[in-house]
This record gives sequence, structure tokens and C-alpha cells, in this order.
Amino acid sequence: MSVPRTVDFYFDLSSPYSYLAATQLPAVAARHGATIRWRPMVLAAVFTAAGNRMPAASPPKAAWMLQDLARWSAIYGVPFRMNGRFPLNTIPAMRLVLVADGHGVAEAVARDAFRRTWAEDQDPNEHLAEMAAAAGLPDGAHTSVQDPAVKEALKASTDEAIARGVFGAPAMFVGDQLFWGNDRLDMLERALAAG
Amino acid sequence: MSVPRTVDFYFDLSSPYSYLAATQLPAVAARHGATIRWRPMVLAAVFTAAGNRMPAASPPKAAWMLQDLARWSAIYGVPFRMNGRFPLNTIPAMRLVLVADGHGVAEAVARDAFRRTWAEDQDPNEHLAEMAAAAGLPDGAHTSVQDPAVKEALKASTDEAIARGVFGAPAMFVGDQLFWGNDRLDMLERALAAG
Repeated sequence: MSVPRTVDFYFDLSSPYSYLAATQLPAVAARHGATIRWRPMVLAAVFTAAGNRMPAASPPKAAWMLQDLARWSAIYGVPFRMNGRFPLNTIPAMRLVLVADGHGVAEAVARDAFRRTWAEDQDPNEHLAEMAAAAGLPDGAHTSVQDPAVKEALKASTDEAIARGVFGAPAMFVGDQLFWGNDRLDMLERALAAG
Repeated sequence: MSVPRTVDFYFDLSSPYSYLAATQLPAVAARHGATIRWRPMVLAAVFTAAGNRMPAASPPKAAWMLQDLARWSAIYGVPFRMNGRFPLNTIPAMRLVLVADGHGVAEAVARDAFRRTWAEDQDPNEHLAEMAAAAGLPDGAHTSVQDPAVKEALKASTDEAIARGVFGAPAMFVGDQLFWGNDRLDMLERALAAG
């Protein structure tokens, strides 16, 4: 009996490596008939819980990451532009992903928000209405990012990630196997291929 | 005119990802006619200078790294065994690499020390005489790890890494292009292929 496979994709829209992974993961999953659960999480809260900190805290590491991000962008053939607001708070936009998830269009909103943030130097929080409309959400859906239940859903998604041992972004699970980082997509694909 | 290419390989023997990279780098370099400069560095000093810290400082990250190291070991088909002393001080063994470098056999000593540390759960500092003999160094060469000039050479190698923007291990350069991590060997090879 074949069990439909799922990749649980935990990300923060403020994470450029999460953006890079999001440009590739749908094709990786499709090659193996797997579906993606788009799970936004508040990375700052994850870092605190995990005793971790943002990778760019080391100045020479931050400088190298800019080169590394440009290299991945070239390899993938996707646009990348460092966001001038980095580090940026993307909590409202991540709540919109969860609102969209309730309508079955989390991927559309997540990818739209990633593109705006990491290819077009936008603040995604300033474009919630446009993103909601582009994804076909009902009129006014974007205002629900202030609803207590939606706020709670993002906290729950974050807590879920922490409980599963996530310490950074992106974090991807196949079953209980954790793959951390855009640079582990190959290993993730091996796990999907192995069933 | 073809310029002989070089990969500057900065590593700490205490770094398991440096071990993994060292099992693959000679073949990568050979495919492109490149030579490797084996440059030990004191990673603790690099972390301090770079405002960085050891990756395993986050408990869930440390737990994941054990899985990740096992996965790389399987992909590469090389033995790996977590060293029971981790984190361990490998300064004397790294000095022996520099002594060996003066005799043209840095690679032999470095790979021997890596294997002992990350495949055989040994403390490499306890096997300096054996490693020196295996590499064909003159009798008593291993005692020179206490020479002031040898101590200074390791400091100089470490300072050189820091001055070049190194913040973690392994760090590999092709020209002035820095590639950080065992997981960037593919990018390193692209750089060698591009000439």
C-alpha cells in the first residue's frame, strides 16, 4: 500500500534561504508525488527556544552569506535581491499564509510573499490585500491577520516546529527526519525517493 | 597561459565537517589539476575573532548535526564515529601538520589525524609519534610541536584565516572566493571548473 507522502516545510518569510528553498521544493515534491505543508514559524522565537541565534550575527559570516545567496540564485536561475530592511518582521504576512491555508492556497500566498521580499525588495506586510486578491481569497480576508485565532495559529505553528526540534530555517521534515537548510534539498529528495 | 590552481583548505582537526571535506577534497582537486594547501587553524580563536560560536551550542542543532554527519558519511561511503571527547583540543596534532608541511607531507598527517579522530574515536594528540613515523618524518620530529616557531606557525595560519574572512570550518578558497562548509564542495568544484 502506497502512503501519500508529505513534506512539512517550516519557514520564516524573513529568511532568504527559506525563499531559495521555496523556489525549488514544489518541483522536488512533485517528482515524488509528495505534498507540501506550508508552515510559517516565527524564527526569532525558534532561535530563543533552541538557544540559537541568527546566522548573520557574525559579521564575516554575514558578508559570506551575501556571496552564497548570490551563488544559489545563479545556480537555481531565480532572482535574488537582498532586502534593504533585513532583518525584517514578517509576522503579518505569515499570518496571511495561515489564513490562505484555510482556503487551500497557502502555497500561492507564501510564494508571492517570498518573491516580493527576496526578489523585489518589498515589505510583504504592506501588500497583504494584493497578495490575498492574487490568491483568490475573499474580499477583506487580509484583515483577519489581526484576529486572535489567526495570531494564535502562528504561535501554534511556531510551537509545533520547536517541539519537533527545529532550530533554524528552512526546516523540512519527511516523516520524523529533519532536513535543515536550502542546502539539504538533495538529502530531502533522497529521503522521498527512498520512500 | 594556464596558471596552476590551488585550493587553500583551512580546517581544525576537531571539526567533523572538516574531516568529511578532507575525505573528498583531494579527488575534487585532482579532477581539476589543482593542489591543496593544508592550513590548520585554531577554530576557537576564529570563532572569537569572527563573533561566531560553535554550531553545537544549540542543543537541538547539536542533535540534528549527529544525524546530518551520519547522512554525509553514508553518502560518501566513509566511516564516521562521533568522538567521545567532543569538543576536543587538537592543537598539538595541528602543529604536527605544519611540521609535516615543511617536509611536503602535510596531507598524509592531516588525513591520518582526521581518520583517528573521526573514524576511530582516538585523541590524535596521543599518537603524534605514530603519525610522524607513518608519514616518513625524521625520528623525533613529533617533539618539535613544542618548538616556539611551530607554535607561532599555527598562530600565523589561524591569523591568516581570520584576515581572509574565515568564520567557521572547513573554509576553502579558490583565489579570493570563500566556500564555507563540507556542503559547499559542489560550489567549490564549479569554481575550479570555471577556471
